[in-house]
Amino acid sequence: MAAGFRPDSVVICVALLRCFHVLSAFNSPNLARQVAVSSNAVVNTVNYNTYYFKQKIDHFGFAEDATFKQRYLVADQHWHKDGGPILFYTGNEGDITWFCNNTGFMWDVAEELGAMLVFAEHRYYGESLPFGDKSYSDAKHLNFLSSEQALADFAVLIEGLKRTVPGAQHSPVIAIGGSYGGMLAAWLRMKYPHVVVGALASSAPIWQFTDLVPCGDFYKIVTQDFSMSGMGCSESISKSWKAIDNISSTDDGLQWLSSAFKLCSPLRKKEDAVAFKAWLQETWVNLAMVDYPYEANFLQPLPAWPIKVVCQFLKNPYRPEKDLLNGIFLAVNVYYNHTGNAPCLNISQTATGNLGYIGWYYQACTEMVMPMCTDGSSDMFELQSWDFKAFSDECYSLFGVRPRADWATTVYGGKNISSHSNIVFSNGGLDPWSGGGVTRNISKSVVAIMIPEGAHHLDLRYNNAYDPKSVLQARALEVKYMTEWIKEASENPKCPHNQVC
Amino acid sequence: MAAGFRPDSVVICVALLRCFHVLSAFNSPNLARQVAVSSNAVVNTVNYNTYYFKQKIDHFGFAEDATFKQRYLVADQHWHKDGGPILFYTGNEGDITWFCNNTGFMWDVAEELGAMLVFAEHRYYGESLPFGDKSYSDAKHLNFLSSEQALADFAVLIEGLKRTVPGAQHSPVIAIGGSYGGMLAAWLRMKYPHVVVGALASSAPIWQFTDLVPCGDFYKIVTQDFSMSGMGCSESISKSWKAIDNISSTDDGLQWLSSAFKLCSPLRKKEDAVAFKAWLQETWVNLAMVDYPYEANFLQPLPAWPIKVVCQFLKNPYRPEKDLLNGIFLAVNVYYNHTGNAPCLNISQTATGNLGYIGWYYQACTEMVMPMCTDGSSDMFELQSWDFKAFSDECYSLFGVRPRADWATTVYGGKNISSHSNIVFSNGGLDPWSGGGVTRNISKSVVAIMIPEGAHHLDLRYNNAYDPKSVLQARALEVKYMTEWIKEASENPKCPHNQVC
Repeated sequence: MAAGFRPDSVVICVALLRCFHVLSAFNSPNLARQVAVSSNAVVNTVNYNTYYFKQKIDHFGFAEDATFKQRYLVADQHWHKDGGPILFYTGNEGDITWFCNNTGFMWDVAEELGAMLVFAEHRYYGESLPFGDKSYSDAKHLNFLSSEQALADFAVLIEGLKRTVPGAQHSPVIAIGGSYGGMLAAWLRMKYPHVVVGALASSAPIWQFTDLVPCGDFYKIVTQDFSMSGMGCSESISKSWKAIDNISSTDDGLQWLSSAFKLCSPLRKKEDAVAFKAWLQETWVNLAMVDYPYEANFLQPLPAWPIKVVCQFLKNPYRPEKDLLNGIFLAVNVYYNHTGNAPCLNISQTATGNLGYIGWYYQACTEMVMPMCTDGSSDMFELQSWDFKAFSDECYSLFGVRPRADWATTVYGGKNISSHSNIVFSNGGLDPWSGGGVTRNISKSVVAIMIPEGAHHLDLRYNNAYDPKSVLQARALEVKYMTEWIKEASENPKCPHNQVC
Repeated sequence: MAAGFRPDSVVICVALLRCFHVLSAFNSPNLARQVAVSSNAVVNTVNYNTYYFKQKIDHFGFAEDATFKQRYLVADQHWHKDGGPILFYTGNEGDITWFCNNTGFMWDVAEELGAMLVFAEHRYYGESLPFGDKSYSDAKHLNFLSSEQALADFAVLIEGLKRTVPGAQHSPVIAIGGSYGGMLAAWLRMKYPHVVVGALASSAPIWQFTDLVPCGDFYKIVTQDFSMSGMGCSESISKSWKAIDNISSTDDGLQWLSSAFKLCSPLRKKEDAVAFKAWLQETWVNLAMVDYPYEANFLQPLPAWPIKVVCQFLKNPYRPEKDLLNGIFLAVNVYYNHTGNAPCLNISQTATGNLGYIGWYYQACTEMVMPMCTDGSSDMFELQSWDFKAFSDECYSLFGVRPRADWATTVYGGKNISSHSNIVFSNGGLDPWSGGGVTRNISKSVVAIMIPEGAHHLDLRYNNAYDPKSVLQARALEVKYMTEWIKEASENPKCPHNQVC
């Protein structure tokens, strides 16, 4: 899953969920080079067993009756057998071990809740490949990569665990996920409420679909993060695009840019500046997603509050263009070279290699159609409108499929989710994905938790001494809700077969 | 859809939903002869317009991007535009015009509710054939025949109507269906609660799946219907099987049987007696389903309380075998020749030709796996246990697919449906399908209505002077619930896009 794709015109998509945004904007991408996997030395502080579960490749049709092995991880050190809850991570677009290592919240609360932890890998990612090496070979093999199939996998797996793990038969199961995994957690509760008693959906942009939220909100939030982190910061970025255009218009300028930014592969022609700008845009977005209050390594190793660090180099937007761009270099260098070990900067790479980019592009090109746009005035980016037709054509040329803009809303309900129950949506105020998230209570049991100082699913990370109070409160509230769902389930136990409950 | 199939060993499946039961028991069926369409001259007293809606052949995959035309019927004479409700019939396994003509309840209440009526045809039935003439050609073409795809059709169609019919945008939609269509109505509310505000599921055996109810309940109820309708009645049928075996053991006996039953095609060999018994069994089941209190023509033209009429010929189980079987002939003759116009009886036919048998066989052979069995002592039939392995092998030889016994319960929740809302399950005490139905309240808003004197979805039929009080009360209660859902919806209008509700 280390192959990337390189849209000529906009951004290089290599970050968690950023693929949402990338595909929303590209004009003529092509599948081209390999993305080198960036340093991602997560220290495995967790202890789990790895298993594989036989899943039907197609839950919704019977012509394809073959199976594949879905990977899942289990940690039951703290589990209270015979009824203790199961916290079930609904894996998203990447290697499940990476999500397992980056979801410290579950490990932190396992003991308190006496819970078994299960991390289920999403089909077509990590090791869970329906057709092995051929899984990505064409539209026919990719045909079973969808959120509906993934949800069915989760439901079947949970029922399988309950049937086979001694003591698990009456265990209430809570779905937990972040980002796309959070969307899956919420949707699992919506579509299979008989399988999970509740869901914690962290930073889950279930409304980032056609006509549900303004397409510009995402980039506005990114811009706000930079505006709030230092005087002149977002203005500097805003002015950098024109500066790059001007300087890249000559060969000398391209050479200067390549050298000033210590690029591994120098920019050779004017058009390369488009990719260069896309890479910068991607970098700012990634920084907004991982603007955590402490040193962390999610998409990249980074200092605490990385945008504040970045903004130290972007105080004066009115400098001469080369000075301004030197500042931009120092800023992105914070992101790509916090360790000081990077000999050069590679514009085909912006984040960890644990994510499955092509798979996500395919999902974005089918049902996960998430419109994004910028206007160049209320955000710090260049004007880019949402063009579904161009997007669809691009998808067709890439995968031979056409996206269905309305399907996600038809199948998952869009804004009309009030008849569901026991779902907590948590969002971080700094996280651009909160723009497509549920940030207001929908009902008594479909509720929103805001973490004003939080970036992308901060609440799902390990407790940390530098955690803002808001995330501690959020986690406490999440545990409170989960405890209630567990209690509710024990008072109204799920029916054994043959009984009416 | 006039082709039938002819299981050697048990029954000929040609009745509404009886296919459920047939496939549960057959041993070595084969697709063989054409079933002559029985007399089915329903007087069209209803007035609707016919439309066609473009549907994706595959809602859950993108490799197949083609569309087909789904037929639907609309009657809006009584509709209160700009917000009046839509009663949406979730079509089942047959021609939608037939269901439209046999769902008088909707026509009876349209004016009172100011409702638009919509009858949506189920894919692969009637005119709604995804691949035209090739739809049934092989497992590849049949692959998109499933309840999930049908529900998605309904959801997409409803959203399409709301988008395009002036005044329908804010109309609350209520799903209504009977039998398999009732299951679909309930499931539509469960899976797409943002699309329909409630569901009336009449005679919907959503629990007739593996391990949810005893497999023998169905035939026990059939037996009870005969026991209650006349002294010696079920005992006579019970004794008839052995009598047939005895008599059919000689060529003379076969000839006698063929003549006594006025069979169109005489029985030629001992094995033919198996099909003959299957046809009788099927006939008794059909009678139980349509034991209506007035003259009616649903599966066949019949007198009021047909089982009572039948039982007049089955008073003495202890008669000599030929006398007993002459009584059996007179009994089935009530079912097949109420009009007196049948020159002979055709054992390859038991009911209307408006149902799509092969389609239903395929559905039973994939996800609609409904175990049935008889024990020969607590029912009036011969011993027949449920043999999933044999069933699966038969399905494989017929369609090249294998049934998945647990899938329906995984996807639709089995007995654990208490987290849903606004569903009324109605069942008739005489209806064998009530054995797999929801006959007790699940929660405040998932409720059961019993109609002790009712056969198969009696409540969905037109009001009739001979209706028992229980069905009148049931219909009144159903209208009350629907009125509440409509009121609820108008107080909490569905969100227009871009708004949080």
